[in-house]
Order: sequence, then C-alpha cells, then structure tokens
Amino acid sequence: MTKVILKRKIAMRIANGHPWIFANEIEKTEGAVDAGGIADVFFHDGKFAGRGYVNPQSQIMVRLLTRRKEEIDEQFFFRRINEAWKYRQKIGYTENCRLIFGEADEMPALIIDKFNDYFVIQTMALGIDVWKPAIVKALQKIFSPKGIYERNDVPVRELEGLQQQKGFLSEPFDTNIIINENGLQFHVDIENGQKTGYFLDQRDNRRQIQHIVKGADVLGAFTYTGTFEIHAAHYGAKSVHGLDISENAVAQATKNAQLNKLDHICKFETINAFDALKNWGKEGRQYDVVMLDPPAFTKSRETIQKAITGYKEINLRGMKLLRDGGFLVTSSCTNLVQPELFLQVIDMAARDARKKIKQVTFRAQASDHPIVWGMENTNYLKFLIVEVSNK
Amino acid sequence: MTKVILKRKIAMRIANGHPWIFANEIEKTEGAVDAGGIADVFFHDGKFAGRGYVNPQSQIMVRLLTRRKEEIDEQFFFRRINEAWKYRQKIGYTENCRLIFGEADEMPALIIDKFNDYFVIQTMALGIDVWKPAIVKALQKIFSPKGIYERNDVPVRELEGLQQQKGFLSEPFDTNIIINENGLQFHVDIENGQKTGYFLDQRDNRRQIQHIVKGADVLGAFTYTGTFEIHAAHYGAKSVHGLDISENAVAQATKNAQLNKLDHICKFETINAFDALKNWGKEGRQYDVVMLDPPAFTKSRETIQKAITGYKEINLRGMKLLRDGGFLVTSSCTNLVQPELFLQVIDMAARDARKKIKQVTFRAQASDHPIVWGMENTNYLKFLIVEVSNK
Repeated sequence: MTKVILKRKIAMRIANGHPWIFANEIEKTEGAVDAGGIADVFFHDGKFAGRGYVNPQSQIMVRLLTRRKEEIDEQFFFRRINEAWKYRQKIGYTENCRLIFGEADEMPALIIDKFNDYFVIQTMALGIDVWKPAIVKALQKIFSPKGIYERNDVPVRELEGLQQQKGFLSEPFDTNIIINENGLQFHVDIENGQKTGYFLDQRDNRRQIQHIVKGADVLGAFTYTGTFEIHAAHYGAKSVHGLDISENAVAQATKNAQLNKLDHICKFETINAFDALKNWGKEGRQYDVVMLDPPAFTKSRETIQKAITGYKEINLRGMKLLRDGGFLVTSSCTNLVQPELFLQVIDMAARDARKKIKQVTFRAQASDHPIVWGMENTNYLKFLIVEVSNK
Repeated sequence: MTKVILKRKIAMRIANGHPWIFANEIEKTEGAVDAGGIADVFFHDGKFAGRGYVNPQSQIMVRLLTRRKEEIDEQFFFRRINEAWKYRQKIGYTENCRLIFGEADEMPALIIDKFNDYFVIQTMALGIDVWKPAIVKALQKIFSPKGIYERNDVPVRELEGLQQQKGFLSEPFDTNIIINENGLQFHVDIENGQKTGYFLDQRDNRRQIQHIVKGADVLGAFTYTGTFEIHAAHYGAKSVHGLDISENAVAQATKNAQLNKLDHICKFETINAFDALKNWGKEGRQYDVVMLDPPAFTKSRETIQKAITGYKEINLRGMKLLRDGGFLVTSSCTNLVQPELFLQVIDMAARDARKKIKQVTFRAQASDHPIVWGMENTNYLKFLIVEVSNK
C-alpha cells in the first residue's frame, strides 16, 4: 500500500476532519503513487491519519475516504451509499434528494442526486471516477433504479486529467422526467439541464415564500426553470413575472407553468436580468415581492470582489423595485461568499438604496445537503427574506 | 418639547437605526427632562435624529420611538400596533403570535403576545409604561379581545423605577387558556407561567424534529411545559422522557400530554437536568434523540463565561447519551451568546465527547420575532439539530 507521510506542520484541518491534503503538506511518499489509487496517510509522528485516493496531477494530492483502516472496495462504496440513504430517510428526504453530497458524506468529489427512480452522478476527481462501476452497482442493489445517468460535463474534471463526458450508466431511458415538489410538478432535463438537471437545494426554501406572495405582484430574476415563480403563483400571487437571459430556460419555465396550469399567472421573458432590474427601477415599475436567485457570480477567490459588487448591485436594484413594506427574497449559491459576508452585502445595498430592512428568515440549503463545520464548501447556499421599507 | 443633543462622537449605532441612547452619549439637554416624557433628539450638527421617551434614572436615557417628526399620542400607538399586526398577517402568523417584539417593531421595551383572543403585555420601561392605556385601547379597537393581561412581574422594571406587578387590563377572565400549535393543544397559564405564559418563539422549530423522532427513544431536558416532548410523541417517537427541576413544570407538562392523549408515550420527571445528564451517561443509558432547551444561563455580560461552560457541559453530556448516529436537538435563548459562538461551543463539546457531528438544521426564533441587524438583542434564539456519530 502506498504511504503518504504528512509534514510536521500541517494544517489542523486534517486532524480536525477535513479530507483534503495538498501537495505542499506532504513530507514524503513511500511506494508507487498511482494516479487514482489508494494510499494510507500518516501524521508526522507515524499516527494513522486515514485512507484516501491519490492524484499527483491534482492540487489536492490526497482526498481521504475514511479515518479507519477499512478496505476500499466495492463493499465500502455499497456501505457508504447505503448509510447516506439511511440518513436521508431519517431526516425525511426520500422521493427526491441529494443522496451523496461529496465531502459532507465522506465521499469527496462525488455527487449523486436521486430524482425518484432516476439517479444522476458526478465523479469530479480521478480517484472517485475509477470507482464508478462500484457506485453504479451499489445504486442498482439498493434502489433497482429505472435509470442512472452520468453528468460529468464539468470543467473541474480537466484539472484531474479527466475528460468531460455525459451519458447513460444504465440501459438508456427517456431523460426528460417529471418530479414532484411541494405539491407541484417540474420537468427535469437530466441530459441537458444545469448541473444534475435540477436544483434540489432550494426545495425547502421555496416553501418559505408561501405567505408573503399572497395577492402580490411578484418579479423573479434569474428564474432558470421557473420553480420559485411557479411556487409563487401556486401560493396565491396575483401576477408573476420571471426573467432569464436564456431562451431555453424561459421555454422550460413556461413549460413548467403549463404543467401546473399556472401559465395564466406566470409570464416569463428572455432578458438580461441586470439590465431589466436597472431599467425598470428607473421606469418606476413596482412589485410587492422581488426574488433573486442568481448563478454563482464567482468560482474563485480571485474574483470575490467582483462577485460582491454583483450581489450588491442586483439586491440594491431589487430593493428599489419594491413597494414600501415589500419583500426581497434573495439567494447566493457560492461558498466563497459565506453567510456573514452575504448579510453584510445586503446591508450595504439597503443603505445605498436608503431602505430599512427587517429579517424574516435566513437559511441554508435543504438538509439533504448536510453542512459539516470546518468544510466551508458544504456551507454554500444563503437564502434570505427581508421586509424592505422606506426610511 | 424637551431637546436632547448628542455628542459629536456618538456611536454610529444611533445613526444606523439603533434606538438606545446612553447617558454618556448626550452632550446636553434643553427644557425639562420629565421621566417618562417625550423628547426630540438631535445629532451634534443640529440634524434631527428622532423622537423618543426619556428616563434620567435609566442607564438608557432615551429610547427612540420614531425617526420622523410625528406626534407621539394615542393614534401613534394605534398605527404602530396595527402595522405590526399587518406584518404578522403578511408573514402568516395570526392565531397566536408575538404581536410586538420591542425594538424590532420600533416599540422599545414593549412586548405583546397574542394567544388567539387573549393578549399579554409587558411594558419594561417607564416611558412605554405610561402609554399602557393607549396600548390597551389600540388592542381593543383592532381585536375586540376576550382578555388583556399585564405580566409586568419582571425585575428589569426596577431599573426604571417601576414596580413589579401583574393583573388584568380588561375585565377579569379565566387566565388558564388552551392554544393550538402544529395540530396539538397546550395549556397556557397566563397568570403564573414563565414570561408571558408560553414560548411562542420555538413554535416553528418544534416542527423540525418531525422526521428524526420517528420510532425513537427521546430524552428532553429542561422540558418546562413539555411542548418539545409532546411534539416528539405526536411525530411518532417510541418513548419520550422529559425532565425539569420544577414540580409545577412537570405537572403542567403531564397535563399537556394528557390533553393531547399522548401521556402513554410522554413521561415527565422532576429532577435536576444537569445531574441526570451526567449520571445517566455514566450509567450507560442511551437515546436516539436528546433535546436540550435550557433557560438563559446568563443575563449579563459578566457571566458569559459561566454560561458558555454550562452550555458546553450539557451538550457534551447530551452527546454522550446518544446512540451512534443519533440526533442532538439543542437551543440557547440568550442574545449574549450569539449564533457563531453557540456553534463554537457545540463544536468544542463534540471534540471533548470525541464525536463527529453533521449539521441538520440551524435556525433562529420564529419570524414573528423579527431580527433587525445591528440590534443584537433581537437575534437571541439559536436552534440547532446535529447528527452525532462515533469517531
């Protein structure tokens, strides 16, 4: 077995449970370092730190899979996926759920979303990619699924020396499926939708708008598949206007509104949301509720400042479009802007817009995407509702 | 009108919306400073800062009621209470709610809880106490209530030169009432219960245990009126054991279990929870879910360290009583331990107990107790569920 010995002065991170080991934290290695293979990791004093997979080509040289001396084999992946499934059942996420949330489930770089009888997989590091057959076998054994699909068309794989690819991991099936959520139905395009095809992480947050949208004129920006907007109509909004720069998104959102027979209330428009928020504010348009659910404005630490400027801008514009006492429903999905910072950005936006705000609710992603303290990337979604009133 | 002129170097707090003005922030006053009277407050440059009530005997010399030049009269209180009521309706809190949450509703030192047709009031500063008749009148006009009661038996009033007192502010009525919550019923003792008689702030959090208690053996410490425990039984717990040091609390909790026909599952015991948690851990008792909802361990900054020790102790003991993969449901209700610090305490407890934890949910109080950023005392309740497993 390959051995990796850590430097004396490694970050406490690893001892405290974080699974990533960077190349510059390694004192030496013993034995062949096979890309994608398994290695035992030891602290400088010889104490066993854990067992994980290696990739000398990656910045993250080792990702730990376990802190125990257990065999990493087919059975290991079966046990882990089964445990993760039991956990989701215990916390009440069964029909659709994020079954495996990478590091939070001690399965670094692995994502599995369950859409009822269908499963979508992402293996975003070489050392987990090689176990794809074991993972598929485990899913088949536990769930007897109607279909399994791989959505590995993600650039991050290239950093690992992997190709981008997507396709069936089971018998082919119709990748346009329909899922249930909060008493509504949504089309999911497993093959061509964003990420795994649908954002399960906002599912509980979507219910949070239930009361504030009653009888309201609602504007939704970055609407994507229209889920927040269709929830708003379902919960009694008077009118809902959803915006997205992508024609495909608008077509999908419209289809979803029709599926729920709410297309007389929900109207979607292909437009740059930044421009719309800005121009419509100047025109004096007014809404009772403005919802903002933008994509991540940054994926690297270098561009955080740009992201902050972006978040501030859209939230300021959103506030200005609200009637006195209206509600701003605002999200951010990048872990690079942590919750405290996000609240500060909204606070700055309110000051600039000369508005007074009151927090209605502040939440993270749904609990089937568990947060593990000390692993910042597991704490990524911010969902905030504030009442906005004139000063 | 009395004038209060602030020092040049006052805390940004006041300009940013905080309503408290301490004696040492005041440059000078003009005109008679009547205890309990209204004064206009100006920044050092002569700009109007707001209008509030004065008490030279209090550390907080002025509490601002408004930033506008509006008359403080009966109509003002009617408008404010009516606005607060509209806000609760908009966010979906109607049958029972905290109608006025002091500073967060721009009504410093005033608490009003609505229990269906009954209202309980606390006026905890002289300058708001003098408006009690106007407040009662407003409630009568808006709600035509069956009863209004004053629970001013709070020591903090003495700092304001006020007496502790309680009694009817309407025709007398039977102060033992029953309220509905999450499909259950609870006795509320308006006259003798803690604070206003019932803790509405945990109402939404109580629903969060729904899935994790199914088929579980549940221990609840600091049970008070047994609400968390009765929810656990309602949601399908196999057994529920609730602890409180007060015989009265245990009697009340038992009565509540009977009211909901769940007394075959919920058993309550009069015992010091600190001792029980410690001893039962040593005895090796095990539960699937442990719930801790202690009273505030501190009310002053001087004793924060003691409070932290207390929180750490009970949470560590609670974790040790859990079976592998069990859930800890833990709260803290003092604003002196802010959310970040609370998480740190739980993290420390987990390390000491040699447990691995995963966050299921982390929340604040129900939204009818709004949080206003920059007013720390409005962000007081922490409610956390973590899965606890062996390392």
